[in-house]
Amino acid sequence: MAAHEERLKRMRTAMEAERLDALVLRLPENVLLLSGFWPMIGATVLVFPLHGDPVCIIPACYESEATRSLWDARTFYYGYGVLGAPNPAEAVQSSLHASVKGKSWKRVGYEASFEVVAPSWNTAEFLVPAAQTHLMLHHVFEGIELVDASALLQSQRLRKTAYEAAKLRLASEISCFGLQAFERSVDVGITGVELAAEVERAVMVAGTQAGAFRVRGFAQVAVGPQESALGYRPNEVSTVRPLRSGDVALLELGVIVDGYWADRTRVRVAGGATDEQLKIFHTVVQAQEAAVAAIRPGVTGAHVDEGARLVIREAGYADFFPHVTGHGLGFRYHESSPILAPESTTKLEEGNLTSVEPGIYMLPSGGFRMEDDVLVTASGAEVLGPFPKNLV
Amino acid sequence: MAAHEERLKRMRTAMEAERLDALVLRLPENVLLLSGFWPMIGATVLVFPLHGDPVCIIPACYESEATRSLWDARTFYYGYGVLGAPNPAEAVQSSLHASVKGKSWKRVGYEASFEVVAPSWNTAEFLVPAAQTHLMLHHVFEGIELVDASALLQSQRLRKTAYEAAKLRLASEISCFGLQAFERSVDVGITGVELAAEVERAVMVAGTQAGAFRVRGFAQVAVGPQESALGYRPNEVSTVRPLRSGDVALLELGVIVDGYWADRTRVRVAGGATDEQLKIFHTVVQAQEAAVAAIRPGVTGAHVDEGARLVIREAGYADFFPHVTGHGLGFRYHESSPILAPESTTKLEEGNLTSVEPGIYMLPSGGFRMEDDVLVTASGAEVLGPFPKNLV
Repeated sequence: MAAHEERLKRMRTAMEAERLDALVLRLPENVLLLSGFWPMIGATVLVFPLHGDPVCIIPACYESEATRSLWDARTFYYGYGVLGAPNPAEAVQSSLHASVKGKSWKRVGYEASFEVVAPSWNTAEFLVPAAQTHLMLHHVFEGIELVDASALLQSQRLRKTAYEAAKLRLASEISCFGLQAFERSVDVGITGVELAAEVERAVMVAGTQAGAFRVRGFAQVAVGPQESALGYRPNEVSTVRPLRSGDVALLELGVIVDGYWADRTRVRVAGGATDEQLKIFHTVVQAQEAAVAAIRPGVTGAHVDEGARLVIREAGYADFFPHVTGHGLGFRYHESSPILAPESTTKLEEGNLTSVEPGIYMLPSGGFRMEDDVLVTASGAEVLGPFPKNLV
Repeated sequence: MAAHEERLKRMRTAMEAERLDALVLRLPENVLLLSGFWPMIGATVLVFPLHGDPVCIIPACYESEATRSLWDARTFYYGYGVLGAPNPAEAVQSSLHASVKGKSWKRVGYEASFEVVAPSWNTAEFLVPAAQTHLMLHHVFEGIELVDASALLQSQRLRKTAYEAAKLRLASEISCFGLQAFERSVDVGITGVELAAEVERAVMVAGTQAGAFRVRGFAQVAVGPQESALGYRPNEVSTVRPLRSGDVALLELGVIVDGYWADRTRVRVAGGATDEQLKIFHTVVQAQEAAVAAIRPGVTGAHVDEGARLVIREAGYADFFPHVTGHGLGFRYHESSPILAPESTTKLEEGNLTSVEPGIYMLPSGGFRMEDDVLVTASGAEVLGPFPKNLV
């Protein structure tokens, strides 16, 4: 059995349990999951049947990328972005018709309620399935029950296969080029936006040189006490404020490598750190280590969270750790599960991938967080792409 | 009247014509259009009524950004991404309920069929309105007719106000930092991915220093004859192939500046260019100039396209220009109109913003394109952020 087939087998088992004869997918993150091909934007449609070969409907201009990565699938190519090509929506619809013809399908799943969508790899808008697509699907699948397969897809993605774990390991390894650039570049005088740009440059250049095809880093660097003390916000902004001696620089780094994500954080102090900053930093590192040590199949998200939270509480910083200890990721920067949080009863399973990222945010010291991605293994945990943790 | 109010006035006129009592919006590109606030992700909801102040429902962690940019609006803030906050979906729903209460609205427009969505500014997934949102809206607006306002929004966005034109001018000016870095960096030995990273770095750093808040460049650099001859594809990939002497480097650059887009292309040859490369380059430049010269209110997209296509045809390259001459943009990298293409009967209007980007792609010379963004003015055209056009 080829390495990727475990995923197809699992998905078919899940489809059988939900009496689904096929899935029709357009979000790049889901097309990648079941076809091996990561579309540039949402212009590729995958029909994944319970029995028989998948059908992939692809803009002709991406044929070389598709050929290189697509697993066994029947392909339809359609003109896209060139003059003289038939209407793309009609071309997709007619290929879908052809792929459905003669099938005795009763129930087909689609992405009705994917509200959280992985960002595009580059500048292009992406195409999300909204009213037109739903209408088109109802037309193509007339007489067939169309059901929302979003929850099925989300839940199946949570347990990574060995094939996917290898891809995610590479993404985390590539993220280290960014962490390295950050470590090398933090110094008095450099600004947050300069640091972010350095990190992104390193990820893209070194990551592509490392053999990946499409790599991008999205870095955010909060600088100084005020900015970094807000560094728990889900999205930060890097500014032109330069680092002064004693200032924290807090890096939040998302990396996408051929469709697979890494999510890392490191923190540095320019010049010398105060005793309080060192204490906070070591508390965060110990909290992270305690959480990682608690990870194994069968424990709850709350149990792992408490591992980190206890260390922070005992150090006297309980009020300054306002967020969860971790969240699932892999086919996105965030996935729906597991969540490592005080009330999370979800039990970890082998193959889950979770960030582990305790943090302490306060004035005047600033914001400190340490974040790595951790794979739940049969017996415990594997930190993907390990990287040193140094404040200065 | 404040500079931005022209947009609100126009939108209300359009809403009146469609008998819409309010719009409820969540896509960042539409929230920006009608509130002045560009949300980080789709977690902000704007209720824009025909009469009275808008209501903006915002994650509390973005209060400082919202306060700084939001025009007159009533605000609700809700906990987001922090422990102990109520369920965000419920918080949004209850704020929506409160903002609707006591209104005698009959028809409310929403984003039912926005299938093409501007990419997120950074790594975060964004939230697109799918089944849950539609369900929630139908619940909140019970007894009120919910209608798809996507076409209305798209069409209203096509004519930029003076306020928006100034924002877009800045975006194009900031894109020049990337064009400059490209011009400076193209040389024998550098790779496409290194060039792309240099360009993105320059845009982000210099653009933020130029006074914008959130700036990102998305660069793609095709290098050498094979890659650049495919450079007409809607999405390119930058590779580790180094430039050899005589190789083309073709830069496609998307830039987002606080929610407003620029779309530029420049092309360079490393070392010396052949006579054929020079001829192709000058043809492309002349074709672009001819198209720009043809732009004024009232002419069709086909007329402008023919301006460029004629130059290319007469130079003998008709078969090697497979794409449209230009497309609308502004609140996205691509907007639905105008399209400058052979059969485009759409008439240009004052305030339209269009790319003008003729190209010639062939072997062995490579792919050549020249692209700027052009605003349709009362009497003609304004090239935003002009930048030199040099091949070597």
